[in-house]
Amino acid sequence: MRQTQLFTKTRKEAPKDEVSKNAQLLIRAGFINKEMAGVYAMLPLGLRALNKVSNIIREEMNILGGQELFLTALQDKTAWEKSGRWDDNAYDIWFKTKLKNGTEVGLGTTHEEPLTTLMKNHIRSYKDLPFAVYQIQTKFRNETRAKSGIMRGREFLMKDMYSFSRDLVEHNLFYEKATKAYVKIFERFGLGEKTYMTYSSGGTFSKYSHEFQTVSPAGEDLIYVCDKCHVAVNKEIMADLESSCPVCKSKDLHEEKAIETGNIFTLGEKFSSAAELTYIDEKGEKKNVFMGCYGMGPSRILGTIVETFADEKGIVWPVAVAPFAVHVIEIGGDKTAVREKAQELYKTLSTNNVETIWDDRDLRPGEKFADSDLMGMPLRLVISEKLLATSEFEIKVRSTGETVMIKETELLNWIKNWLQTNK
Amino acid sequence: MRQTQLFTKTRKEAPKDEVSKNAQLLIRAGFINKEMAGVYAMLPLGLRALNKVSNIIREEMNILGGQELFLTALQDKTAWEKSGRWDDNAYDIWFKTKLKNGTEVGLGTTHEEPLTTLMKNHIRSYKDLPFAVYQIQTKFRNETRAKSGIMRGREFLMKDMYSFSRDLVEHNLFYEKATKAYVKIFERFGLGEKTYMTYSSGGTFSKYSHEFQTVSPAGEDLIYVCDKCHVAVNKEIMADLESSCPVCKSKDLHEEKAIETGNIFTLGEKFSSAAELTYIDEKGEKKNVFMGCYGMGPSRILGTIVETFADEKGIVWPVAVAPFAVHVIEIGGDKTAVREKAQELYKTLSTNNVETIWDDRDLRPGEKFADSDLMGMPLRLVISEKLLATSEFEIKVRSTGETVMIKETELLNWIKNWLQTNK
Repeated sequence: MRQTQLFTKTRKEAPKDEVSKNAQLLIRAGFINKEMAGVYAMLPLGLRALNKVSNIIREEMNILGGQELFLTALQDKTAWEKSGRWDDNAYDIWFKTKLKNGTEVGLGTTHEEPLTTLMKNHIRSYKDLPFAVYQIQTKFRNETRAKSGIMRGREFLMKDMYSFSRDLVEHNLFYEKATKAYVKIFERFGLGEKTYMTYSSGGTFSKYSHEFQTVSPAGEDLIYVCDKCHVAVNKEIMADLESSCPVCKSKDLHEEKAIETGNIFTLGEKFSSAAELTYIDEKGEKKNVFMGCYGMGPSRILGTIVETFADEKGIVWPVAVAPFAVHVIEIGGDKTAVREKAQELYKTLSTNNVETIWDDRDLRPGEKFADSDLMGMPLRLVISEKLLATSEFEIKVRSTGETVMIKETELLNWIKNWLQTNK
Repeated sequence: MRQTQLFTKTRKEAPKDEVSKNAQLLIRAGFINKEMAGVYAMLPLGLRALNKVSNIIREEMNILGGQELFLTALQDKTAWEKSGRWDDNAYDIWFKTKLKNGTEVGLGTTHEEPLTTLMKNHIRSYKDLPFAVYQIQTKFRNETRAKSGIMRGREFLMKDMYSFSRDLVEHNLFYEKATKAYVKIFERFGLGEKTYMTYSSGGTFSKYSHEFQTVSPAGEDLIYVCDKCHVAVNKEIMADLESSCPVCKSKDLHEEKAIETGNIFTLGEKFSSAAELTYIDEKGEKKNVFMGCYGMGPSRILGTIVETFADEKGIVWPVAVAPFAVHVIEIGGDKTAVREKAQELYKTLSTNNVETIWDDRDLRPGEKFADSDLMGMPLRLVISEKLLATSEFEIKVRSTGETVMIKETELLNWIKNWLQTNK
């Protein structure tokens, strides 16, 4: 896209009340807009990055066999009363509102209750099990404080998957596969090294749940990492585990601040028994369906990526989620030769499926470079009169600052190879 | 997809309180779930169809140059107070709720106010104009009655585009292009013939607004159609027009019930002046930005498509929005040869980008055919032992009931040609 046709502008300062690094940078770069604390609109570049995050998650959920659906925000209280989560004292993050006739309704923060209810129309026999469904959908949480930018929103995007199995044995098979899918997703985001499968408190039906915690100074959680096993323990259950690694039993764990970027949980029969979601087994007996849930928030992931890779100059996007792969900067676009070459390269890259944004604005080089660093596309390609004379172009790698000079004839291949290697 | 792996089941009866044909059929076919009146969850097949509708709209909005963004549901009242639309007496379709600290917030039913506010950060000069942005996003309307299924929801999906121009002249150029894009979109849905650009009441800044009205007995509006010009007049302004066609002046108009499937509106300076959204023109003078809005609801379109094409047996999907193009029905799948051939054809079609659902369930032929008719995929391909012996397969066209026998060697080409021709 041509940058003159992008309506967003960068800005030098974020709003004064914005304390989180992720939102400060995303606002300054024109990726998001702060509507109120914990509520952010996605502007074109932010939406492009967010969609890439969502699509990576979607691909892996589809490989797992997940069937995508889209539940509603407005919640009928009936199902929530059965599970005991309608009461504000039991579940204190509701937004509630009213229909014209006075009926109270809630805004969904999760969907176990309505999903369990609707499954009563579809699950009858053991032959209908197991399966899993998921959605990528807007959730609402009435947070008292919302100071972590897009990492903890009052309104945010969530991928929530739910599995339906006959029993614990069948459930565990899927749970194991889902765990592996989560590991793969974090690797695709470039967060694999910093993200630990973390043992956390379970429930009636399992000893532990599993969080995925990404180590970051911006994290709100404290975890204890076992480097040998690449797993961690949430502070909450350290005492239960006698401060040892649940895998190798080592006591050599170190404390880290971390962001909870995913969680998987064995729900067991908690919601199916409340909603009377049953199936008839091979012997003709009625049994409760055995459930699991698997959460991961694309908007929180986006914030985590910004927090993890940004430097003092701005955002640094990994290739997999960058809104554009290449930022073409023309210097002296008022000169015909520069403008024409920029246009030609922009077209060549775009038609070869290299997503490119071309800064064709009439601004001084320093401003363009500063904006480009702030916006954080993986590669910056500079075209100037001076470089034209040499038939070489300057490519700067945003993440390392490394600069290389590439001949025009080799440009497309060099960029494609680099993007492939660094994906 | 294999139908045994789809969790949804068809049902003989819709819920008793469901009076609209579109929701009755979509619920019976397992495409949607009714959460409460006017609030429907999209199940996997429904979501596939809805995404196809959304993507057709998205493609045409992108061709228009629209920049996609994603605003929030939660609304800060400040901007709405400025425009005079926060007051329930002025604007009576709000859902309102409260933050923990007691601050009242609304759920967005449209987005002129927040968008105009955020544009103050991005529009400065005449050089920044014109442009247009759009989103495909969930809206909330506190409807007193919600009896038209997914055509009038309390929660529904909306594509809303907004244009920002220097003045009326520049605005009209875009408005004209948007009108053409709308006409093209309705043609792609197969609704072109039945959809009329309809003159409706305007506002301070334009004599008329333009609705797109699709003729249907399920419509809630009354329009007067001029067959000669393929335009119509909304009943509201018939008197103003002295009951004549605004194009050819003919008085030969006939009344039709119709569904409002789109609308475009010249907002002018209404919202920019309330929000003080200005730009500096060529002469250095401050001017209000001139705006337009362009609405089209994917969920309402989906309902309209069901209402328009369904017959007594069930839904009939046009190719462009069908969740799957081909429904493979195996008869006698317990026989190895039938099962193997079904699997082979399913694979051949799928790998050749023909979206295929394969009914591999252990059910009687009559049940499978009835479900297939109810679910409404464009082509039904039957594989049975009897047909295997002849090396021919039966294809039935859902929309016409026409049946043809096709040799196996010609099957893929026949199907691809048919889908292309009937797209």
